[in-house]
Amino acid sequence: MRISISKHCENISKLLGSKGVFYVKGAETSIHPDSDTELNFFQDSNMTYVSGVYEPGFEFLYDMNSKRSILFAPFVSADEAVWIGPQPSLSDYKNKYGADHIYYTNDFSTVVNDINPEMIYRIDYQSDSSLSKVKAKIDSTKLIDAIHEARVFKEAEEIELMKKVNSISGKAHIDLMKQNLIGKNERNLYSKFVHHILDEGCEREAYTTIVGSGRNSAILHYIRNNANITENSELVLVDAGGSYRGYASDITRTWPVGKHFSPEAKQIYQIVLDMQEAVILAAKPGVQWEDMHILANKVAAEGLLKLGILKGNLDSILESFVVGYFFPHGLGHFLGIDTHDCGGYPKGVERINKPGLRYLRVRRELKEGMVLTVEPGLYFVSDLINEAKNTQSISQFIDFDMVDKYFKIGGVRIEDNIVITSTGNFNLTNVPKQVLDIEQLRCTA
Amino acid sequence: MRISISKHCENISKLLGSKGVFYVKGAETSIHPDSDTELNFFQDSNMTYVSGVYEPGFEFLYDMNSKRSILFAPFVSADEAVWIGPQPSLSDYKNKYGADHIYYTNDFSTVVNDINPEMIYRIDYQSDSSLSKVKAKIDSTKLIDAIHEARVFKEAEEIELMKKVNSISGKAHIDLMKQNLIGKNERNLYSKFVHHILDEGCEREAYTTIVGSGRNSAILHYIRNNANITENSELVLVDAGGSYRGYASDITRTWPVGKHFSPEAKQIYQIVLDMQEAVILAAKPGVQWEDMHILANKVAAEGLLKLGILKGNLDSILESFVVGYFFPHGLGHFLGIDTHDCGGYPKGVERINKPGLRYLRVRRELKEGMVLTVEPGLYFVSDLINEAKNTQSISQFIDFDMVDKYFKIGGVRIEDNIVITSTGNFNLTNVPKQVLDIEQLRCTA
Repeated sequence: MRISISKHCENISKLLGSKGVFYVKGAETSIHPDSDTELNFFQDSNMTYVSGVYEPGFEFLYDMNSKRSILFAPFVSADEAVWIGPQPSLSDYKNKYGADHIYYTNDFSTVVNDINPEMIYRIDYQSDSSLSKVKAKIDSTKLIDAIHEARVFKEAEEIELMKKVNSISGKAHIDLMKQNLIGKNERNLYSKFVHHILDEGCEREAYTTIVGSGRNSAILHYIRNNANITENSELVLVDAGGSYRGYASDITRTWPVGKHFSPEAKQIYQIVLDMQEAVILAAKPGVQWEDMHILANKVAAEGLLKLGILKGNLDSILESFVVGYFFPHGLGHFLGIDTHDCGGYPKGVERINKPGLRYLRVRRELKEGMVLTVEPGLYFVSDLINEAKNTQSISQFIDFDMVDKYFKIGGVRIEDNIVITSTGNFNLTNVPKQVLDIEQLRCTA
Repeated sequence: MRISISKHCENISKLLGSKGVFYVKGAETSIHPDSDTELNFFQDSNMTYVSGVYEPGFEFLYDMNSKRSILFAPFVSADEAVWIGPQPSLSDYKNKYGADHIYYTNDFSTVVNDINPEMIYRIDYQSDSSLSKVKAKIDSTKLIDAIHEARVFKEAEEIELMKKVNSISGKAHIDLMKQNLIGKNERNLYSKFVHHILDEGCEREAYTTIVGSGRNSAILHYIRNNANITENSELVLVDAGGSYRGYASDITRTWPVGKHFSPEAKQIYQIVLDMQEAVILAAKPGVQWEDMHILANKVAAEGLLKLGILKGNLDSILESFVVGYFFPHGLGHFLGIDTHDCGGYPKGVERINKPGLRYLRVRRELKEGMVLTVEPGLYFVSDLINEAKNTQSISQFIDFDMVDKYFKIGGVRIEDNIVITSTGNFNLTNVPKQVLDIEQLRCTA
């Protein structure tokens, strides 16, 4: 299972004007400062997109005139081979990654000078040391935008990789949902998740895992994952995904610490699920992503009104953005090589400075091939509740006695990964999320 | 369990001359390039030593005149707190880490200017941005050497931390030795190891784990950990240790893929164990570490002579350094905050350019409080065997037919972590290593 270099590079080439070559440098092994401790290798995301390479020290060139991809592999000396083992031959690498040509990095300037390109496009933040001996005009401004735009629309093989990593991560989530948690610590769930994804061939977590129990579930970016889980913890929120061959998954489930949701937790959970299902039903080509956020807000407002947490007229509630005090983050983001994948804001599009909306990571019309997370949530965050209390235009819509009643549950988030198709979308995430299905899993704990 | 800031800082202060202040900057959160993906936090090793802090964004100052430690914590705004949760108060941080004074980083220059030190010692590789508004002479050359030298001699609380992380990692090794491996992949052992150490509260692997089965056990720095394990694999070598509160463990065990060692594997294993036990028996204050390496070489030579892999006169064999072709790495290294901890080569001491010896990471006289790994190994590495064949001064001592007979086992390494005491040493590592004990564990698989 690997990406198609030629498709990816042609996508970029069309956006660049198809003349000259473009150059992308792969990441090197990083060393912790003042030591020789190697950090786990983490490929440059744009190198992953153009080459699929998941080893350190490679460089990549694409000749847009002749449509040829050229990969440069690091040369390993006999002395080094004693330490790191016999290395693949150049033709092994060529076959592994599917490049048209393969050389050692030592040959870089010779190969480029033979091509004699009218222009070399490079990425500004990457080192240009390999280009110092090359005779050609160099542009450092256009390539990054072209790659970012190409990366927005996923090819079939990218969807396959994302299916695979979603499936691995989803199975890990299901296993966590089967664990008895009483007497455990949040890190016991964290360690189990990491075990699963590494066991199935992921190279790492796609992002820092969040395991928040009890009131910690209301901390949006809770990464300490070290609190004891108690019977009073109500809910646990797990936001975790693996990365496989450089492609990310990003899944959140929230479930009861015991076998069943408390009545209050179940009510809030069901609203978040309704928000998510409404969005997934509506997401298709032609739809603006910010309208999906507004739709989720509306479903939340209706649900919170029905519970009596909000009060007043629905239209006034929606105009006031009071929901943003309970749903303070964006509805979702592009997903791909990066967890928060590139291309969410086309040039010139600004953020909307309203609660919730200001954190939107995507403001674009949905199109076939986009992959997004749909991750609505509702949280009872002390600081936000206090802010709401002190903001008269907002406080009039909130019954704070009812907020006190629900405060203990912390927060709920439900996050799936969807692919926009020509007519709608399909869901990459196959982890139970209906109340009864979750309670059934919890009863096996 | 935490380090004693005052002891560590006094150790450094004495080496610096006890006048002025010294400044150490803690690591920040790192972000993957061209994305917002946070990397797992990895504290600067020298910051760990002076402060014990294991969170991003702190700075540290020690006033050598008044013997006061001053910790600076990052200020978290109300907006940020919604995302990362309510933060500890300054006095919480003071108690957690045991500093004499605590301020926010915002107050750094005010605090320093109040002290009005005659000199600020800083570390050259760290950012000096906080010092830009400070009025004082600054020295960037002396502090790093003083910290490195202080770090060589572990205090009692450091030994306690290292006992703890060794115990966690040791239990993980024992669990791996109880696994049935047929039909498994190396990464299944790797993932299980990571699970164990995270589950017990380690923040990460101390270094990139090595799980090499079959011939991969002969690759000294094998980190791919992705080969299928088969019945023909003979041995699996696991070199893995967790890091706990910034302190490392570094343990290697080599054991049969099946229930029992093959006769050849057992013979080589026993020689390596004899090498290790001879060194551990001899390691005490006053001994030169390179003499320990030479001792291990001698035990290896005797063992390999007895097996008929080496031939000729023992003294000539030792003079030839032929053993270095089977034991091509150093005997061990300092261990502490870094896996290859600092201070192994005092100024002016050069490496010895002989096989094996050239990779020695320590050339010092052993003293109380030093912590070292003892990790002899014997390997059958194609490239080295070929080099030996082509080197007449070496090839005369090797029976290459016998080498062929043992080639299949790959390599064996056994690594424990020892603390030098006033009279000898004690072993932090409590993982079975006798042939019979290992086979007993393998029979529970």
